[in-house]
Amino acid sequence: MSKKNVIVGQSGGPTSVINSSLYGVVTGFLGSEKIDKIYGMVNGIEGFLAGKTTVLSDLSKEELEILQTTPASYLKSCRFKLPEDLNDPVYPTLLKKFEEMNVGYFFYIGGNDSMDTVSKLSRYGAQVGTDILFMGVPKTIDNDLIVTDHTPGYGSAAKYVATTVRECALDAGVYAAPCVTVVEIMGRHAGWLTAASVLARKFEGDAPHLIYLPEVAFDLDQCLADVKKCLEKTNNVVVCISEGIADKDGKFICEYSGSADGAVDSFGHKKLTGSGKYLSEVIGEKLNVKVRSLEFSIIQRCGASLASATDIKEAAMAGSVAAKAALEGKTGMMVAFIREPGDEYKITYQLTDVNEVCNKEKPFPAEWITDGGTNIGDGYVKYALPLIQGASPVKLVDGLPAFLDLATTLKK
Amino acid sequence: MSKKNVIVGQSGGPTSVINSSLYGVVTGFLGSEKIDKIYGMVNGIEGFLAGKTTVLSDLSKEELEILQTTPASYLKSCRFKLPEDLNDPVYPTLLKKFEEMNVGYFFYIGGNDSMDTVSKLSRYGAQVGTDILFMGVPKTIDNDLIVTDHTPGYGSAAKYVATTVRECALDAGVYAAPCVTVVEIMGRHAGWLTAASVLARKFEGDAPHLIYLPEVAFDLDQCLADVKKCLEKTNNVVVCISEGIADKDGKFICEYSGSADGAVDSFGHKKLTGSGKYLSEVIGEKLNVKVRSLEFSIIQRCGASLASATDIKEAAMAGSVAAKAALEGKTGMMVAFIREPGDEYKITYQLTDVNEVCNKEKPFPAEWITDGGTNIGDGYVKYALPLIQGASPVKLVDGLPAFLDLATTLKK
Repeated sequence: MSKKNVIVGQSGGPTSVINSSLYGVVTGFLGSEKIDKIYGMVNGIEGFLAGKTTVLSDLSKEELEILQTTPASYLKSCRFKLPEDLNDPVYPTLLKKFEEMNVGYFFYIGGNDSMDTVSKLSRYGAQVGTDILFMGVPKTIDNDLIVTDHTPGYGSAAKYVATTVRECALDAGVYAAPCVTVVEIMGRHAGWLTAASVLARKFEGDAPHLIYLPEVAFDLDQCLADVKKCLEKTNNVVVCISEGIADKDGKFICEYSGSADGAVDSFGHKKLTGSGKYLSEVIGEKLNVKVRSLEFSIIQRCGASLASATDIKEAAMAGSVAAKAALEGKTGMMVAFIREPGDEYKITYQLTDVNEVCNKEKPFPAEWITDGGTNIGDGYVKYALPLIQGASPVKLVDGLPAFLDLATTLKK
Repeated sequence: MSKKNVIVGQSGGPTSVINSSLYGVVTGFLGSEKIDKIYGMVNGIEGFLAGKTTVLSDLSKEELEILQTTPASYLKSCRFKLPEDLNDPVYPTLLKKFEEMNVGYFFYIGGNDSMDTVSKLSRYGAQVGTDILFMGVPKTIDNDLIVTDHTPGYGSAAKYVATTVRECALDAGVYAAPCVTVVEIMGRHAGWLTAASVLARKFEGDAPHLIYLPEVAFDLDQCLADVKKCLEKTNNVVVCISEGIADKDGKFICEYSGSADGAVDSFGHKKLTGSGKYLSEVIGEKLNVKVRSLEFSIIQRCGASLASATDIKEAAMAGSVAAKAALEGKTGMMVAFIREPGDEYKITYQLTDVNEVCNKEKPFPAEWITDGGTNIGDGYVKYALPLIQGASPVKLVDGLPAFLDLATTLKK
C-alpha cells in the first residue's frame, strides 16, 4: 500500500487550546506506516486554495510540545463558507489539489461552520467516489455544538472568565463608594461562556450579582430595578452579560445606543460591540452611581496562561482520536465527548456523523437559568467545574510563556 | 517597655502584589516582643476616620500565605488627601485615635499620594512630639516613584502587559485580511507600563509594531503615516498606547473625540477613557482597514495569575524591611529598591526620607524612547526583564486561584 499525506486546517475564531488539538492530530498520525507527510493549510480552506501550506511533520518534538500550549490558530484561520451547491467548481478544484498533493486524510479543526465544511467535502467526496477521508475536530469557546458534552476551548475560556471576574470584583470593591461593574463576555446566541462567571462566586452575596444570558429576553427596566436592589445590599455590584443579550423583540441591547452599524461578518453574523458599554452608561445615568465597563474581548479566548489543564488534555485527545479513527478508514465524522454517568468526571471519545452536528446550536439549558433570568443554578456549576481544573503547563522563557509562531517557523 | 500596636493601611489603586507587601509588614512584626496587635485600617485613612478597622494579627498562617498572592487591596482603599495645613483639626483627631488604640507604628502602603500622607503625618507627629513611628511602603503599577529602582506592582503589571500583548497579537493575526489592533495600557503621565509591551516582541518585525508613550507629544497624522508604513510590511499591526498620550499642546487624544467629559477624580487627575477606542476608529476610517480596540483596564493590575514571582517576593521584602526598620525606631521613611551594579540582578533594600519621594514623578528615560517616539530600546528591555521573572505560586482550589477576601474574614 502506498503512503498517503495528511492535510490539516484550522478555521473560525481561535481558542486557547485549538493548537492542542492540532498537536493531537499530528502526534496521532506520526509513526503510522500509512502516512508520509503531514501538511498544514495556512489560513484554512481559503489559504489552501491560494496555495498556502506548511509541513507540520517537520516540527521537532520540542516545537510540538510548545505548540500544545500556544494560543490562537498556529495555522492561522479563515471565515470561508463552501457553497451549498455541490456542483460548484470549487469542489473539483479542491479535490484535484488534494490528489496532486497525494492527500489521503483531510482534517479540519473548528466550530459549527468548520463542521459544515467537513460535511460538504465528505458528501462531495462520496458523490464522486474519492478515497480521501474527511474528519472534523471540534473547537469553540461558545460550547454550542450538539451531541458533544462540551467542546475543546470552552473549559479554558470558562476558567479565564471565572478567574478574571473574581479578580476584577476584588479590584472593583476597594473603594467605599457604590460602584457597578458591567462585564461583557463573548456569546452571540449561547450564554455558555457568560454562565461561567457564576464559578467566580465564593459565598452568598459574592460577585457576580447578576448574570444575563442571551437565552432570556433582556428587559432594560427590569435590569435597572435588579441593579438597584443589589446596591441596597452591597457597594460593589458586578453584572455579567453576554455580548448578544437582546430584548423580547430580538433587538440587541448594543443597537439601543444607535451606534451599532448593522455590519455583518462573512457568515452573516451581526457584529456586536458595545452591549456592556451601553448598559453601564444607562446604569450610571439612571441610578446615579459610578460605573465601569469591562470587555474581556479576545483575551478570553487567547489567555493561554489561564487555560485549563483538563481542556488542553481533552483537546489533544480529540485530535489524536480523530487521527486514529481516520487511519482505520473512518470519514465524515466529528469527535464528540461523552460524559460517563456518576459523580466522578470521566469522558469517553466517540465518533459522530458530522452531518448531524453542523449548522445546529446547543442552547444553554433553561433549567439552569434561575432567579428570573438573573442567575445560574448549581446544575451548571456541577457540569462546568470539572472542565476548568488544573493549571496550564505552559513553559516560561525569560518570564514570558513560550509560544510557537508560524512566522518564526517559516523563517527557519 | 509596654507593648504597642501596629496599624496598617492600603491606599490608591490596587496592584497584584500590594497584599504581598501587607503580608511582609504583618510577618515582619509578628513575633516581636515590642508588638501586641496588628490592626488594619479598612478603606485607608478615610475608613479609619469612620472607625473601620480589622485585626490582622488574628489571621492564620495559611490565610497569610493566601494573602500573599491575592490581588487588589485586602484592606480596601481610599483616595483621601490629607490637608496641606498641618493645623487642620484632622491631625489631632487622627493622633487621638491612634493613641486610644495604643498604636506605636503607622504603616501606609501606596503610591505617590500615599507617601504624601506618610510625609504629612510624620511631619505633624514631629511637630507635636508623638512617639508614633510613620512608615511608607511603595506600590504602583505606574513605576513613577523616584529614588527606588522600581516599585512593587510594576513587575507584575509589566508581565501581564507583555504576556497579553503577545497572546492578543497571535490571536489578531489569524485572519489573512489586514488588521490593526490598538491596545490601551494604563499610564496617565508615565509610559513605564506601556513600554513593557516591547517585551512581547520575539523577533524583528514582531508585534508590537508601534509604541506611543505620554512622554512624547503625540501627532495623529504622523501616527497614521506610521501605521500605514507598518501595513506595507505586515497584515497584523499591533499599536500599544498609554491612556494618557497627548498632543504637543497637552490635549489628551481621548479629548479629540469630544466624548471626554472633563471629569476629575478626587486628586484632581483628569479621568481618561477612550484614547485607544478613538485612535482605532480614526485608523479604521482614514486607512480603510479592519481595526480592533483592546483595553486592559483594571485587569492589568489585578491579573494575579500572571503576577511576577520576583515582584511578589520583593513586595513582601519591602513590607518586612519597613517593619524591621520601624522596630529599630525609624520614622518618616519609605523603603526603596537599589539595584546593584553588574550584570547579575540584585536588589538591596534601603530606607529613604519619605519627604524626598512624595509628590514627585520619575519620567520614563528619554534615551530609551527610540525610532522617533514609536519604539522602546534595549536599555529598557535589560532594565525590565529581571522584574517579570517567575510564575506566581498562586494556589488553585477547584480550578480557581485561592484568594483571601476581607468580606469572608469579617464573617468568621
